[in-house]
Amino acid sequence: MHKTVAIQGIKGSFHHIVSQQYFKNEVDVIECPSFQDTVSALLNEQADVIVMAIENSIAGSIIPNYALIDANNLQVVGEYYLDVQHHLMALPNQSISDIMEVHSHPMALLQCAVFFKDYPHIKLVEAKDTADVAKHIQVNKSIGIAAIASDLAAETFSLNILNRSIQTIKHNETRFVIVQRYSEEINKESINKASIKFELEHKRGSLATVLNVLSDCKLNVTKIQSLPIIETPWKYAFFVDVTFAEYKDFEKANTILELMTTHIKVLGAYKNAKK
Amino acid sequence: MHKTVAIQGIKGSFHHIVSQQYFKNEVDVIECPSFQDTVSALLNEQADVIVMAIENSIAGSIIPNYALIDANNLQVVGEYYLDVQHHLMALPNQSISDIMEVHSHPMALLQCAVFFKDYPHIKLVEAKDTADVAKHIQVNKSIGIAAIASDLAAETFSLNILNRSIQTIKHNETRFVIVQRYSEEINKESINKASIKFELEHKRGSLATVLNVLSDCKLNVTKIQSLPIIETPWKYAFFVDVTFAEYKDFEKANTILELMTTHIKVLGAYKNAKK
Repeated sequence: MHKTVAIQGIKGSFHHIVSQQYFKNEVDVIECPSFQDTVSALLNEQADVIVMAIENSIAGSIIPNYALIDANNLQVVGEYYLDVQHHLMALPNQSISDIMEVHSHPMALLQCAVFFKDYPHIKLVEAKDTADVAKHIQVNKSIGIAAIASDLAAETFSLNILNRSIQTIKHNETRFVIVQRYSEEINKESINKASIKFELEHKRGSLATVLNVLSDCKLNVTKIQSLPIIETPWKYAFFVDVTFAEYKDFEKANTILELMTTHIKVLGAYKNAKK
Repeated sequence: MHKTVAIQGIKGSFHHIVSQQYFKNEVDVIECPSFQDTVSALLNEQADVIVMAIENSIAGSIIPNYALIDANNLQVVGEYYLDVQHHLMALPNQSISDIMEVHSHPMALLQCAVFFKDYPHIKLVEAKDTADVAKHIQVNKSIGIAAIASDLAAETFSLNILNRSIQTIKHNETRFVIVQRYSEEINKESINKASIKFELEHKRGSLATVLNVLSDCKLNVTKIQSLPIIETPWKYAFFVDVTFAEYKDFEKANTILELMTTHIKVLGAYKNAKK
C-alpha cells in the first residue's frame, strides 16, 4: 500500500532514505521543517506515518522525539537501522583544493572532524540540515562550497562526490522509528520487541525490582534511559525497550508492571529490526 | 583558591553563571568555541577545571560530553544544578513590537516556542549560542533583533530585558559537572554521590543482577542510561549515577561490580548537589 510519510528535512535526507528502504520505495514524502511539524502532519491526516530518528550510536537518544511520541499518544509500529555514511560533495568539476567552505549539520561536522584536519584551508560552517546544503549548492551554483550528505542527496541534486565515507567511525548506525496515529491490528506472531515508558517513586531498589520482573518474564532489555519528571522531584520516568520470543511473555510482564509502576504506557509493539 | 575555568561559550552564558555560583565568583573564565576545546584547555593546563553541561530535564543527557570525560580519563569532582531562565532582550528603547527577529540556540527557541505564538511577526533564527547573540546585538547595535539569554548576558552586554522567563516550562533545570584532570584527595566524609560506567554482555537479566547488587549495598540509582558500544554489537555500556550515605558502601559495590562487569570505571565521586 502506498504510504504518505512525513519526514523532518527534505528529499535526499537520511529520513528520506529510510522511508524508501522501509516501505520499498512505495512512498510519497512530506518535507517538514521540524519534528513537531511531522507530528502535526500526522495528526491532521496529511501523512499516514512519520519516519523519525530516535537514537544514534554517538549522541544517544533523541529525547525530545520520545516526548513527542508520548505527549501525542502516537504509536511506534516499526523500527529501522541505517548505517549513516557521510560523503563530501560539490558541484561537478571541482576538486577538494577548490573547496573553501563545508556546510553541514553540527553532528555531521563533528563526526567528520578528523578528516578535515588534513585540509586546514577548509572552513567548517554549521547548517540546519545535511541535504538542504546540497540543494542550496545546486540551486545557487555555489562554487567553492561542499556539503556532507548522503548518496541520495548527491543523486537528487546532481552533485559530484569528492570523498566517500569521511566520518571517523565507519560503522555509524542511526535508529529510526515508524510512527502512526493508532496501533495497527497487532499480528502477535511477528511482534518481538516493544517500547514502554513507566514511572517509579525514587525508592532504593525500585528499578532493580522492575528489571527482575522483566527478566523473570523472559524479556531482554535492549535499551534503558531514565529521565527526571519535570516539576515532580523524586519521581523518575524510564524509557525501556525489550525484546522477547513470545508475545504472551510481554503481556504477562505488562500486567505485572501495571501493578508495580505508575503510568505504564506501551509506546509501541513491533518487529525487531536487528537480526 | 582562585580557579581558571574552561567553558563552552562566552561570558554571560549559563556556563559562566554556573562557574561563578559554584566557585563563589573566584574564577577566571576561558571562553571556548566547543566542548572539545574545553578539554584541550584542561589537558594543556591552561585551565584548572571545566564546567560542563551534562543533562537537562527536557533533552536528557548530553552523551557526547560523557564520551569526552570517558575518553580523556577526566574526573568529575562536583555537580551543580541551575534553574535556567530564558529572558527576551534587546537594545534599550525598543519594545517587543519593534522586534522582527529573535536569534538563539535551537534548544532555547524550542523551549520558548509557545511564547512566540502570540507574536507571529517575529521570525525565529537559529544561532550557535545564547550569550553570543546578546554580544552581537551590542557590538553591531542591531535594531529589531532580540536575544534569548540570561540575566548575566543582559547585564554583560547592556541589553534591556523585554520579557522575563519566557520558556514554557517554568522550572527548567540543567545539571552541570565540574571536571578535572585528576581526582582530588577524596574527603570520604563529604562524598555521597558517584558516576560510574560499566559494560555488560547482552544477556537476559545481567542488568537486573547489577542493580540488585547496588540496592543490596544501599546505593540509590538516580540516573541510568544505556548506550550501544560502537563497533561491538551485543555489548552495552551503562552510565549510572548513584547516591549513598556511606562511602564504604560505594567501595563495597564497586568491588563486587569489578567482578561482575567488564570495564567498570568511576568517572567521579563527589558531593550530591540535591538536598
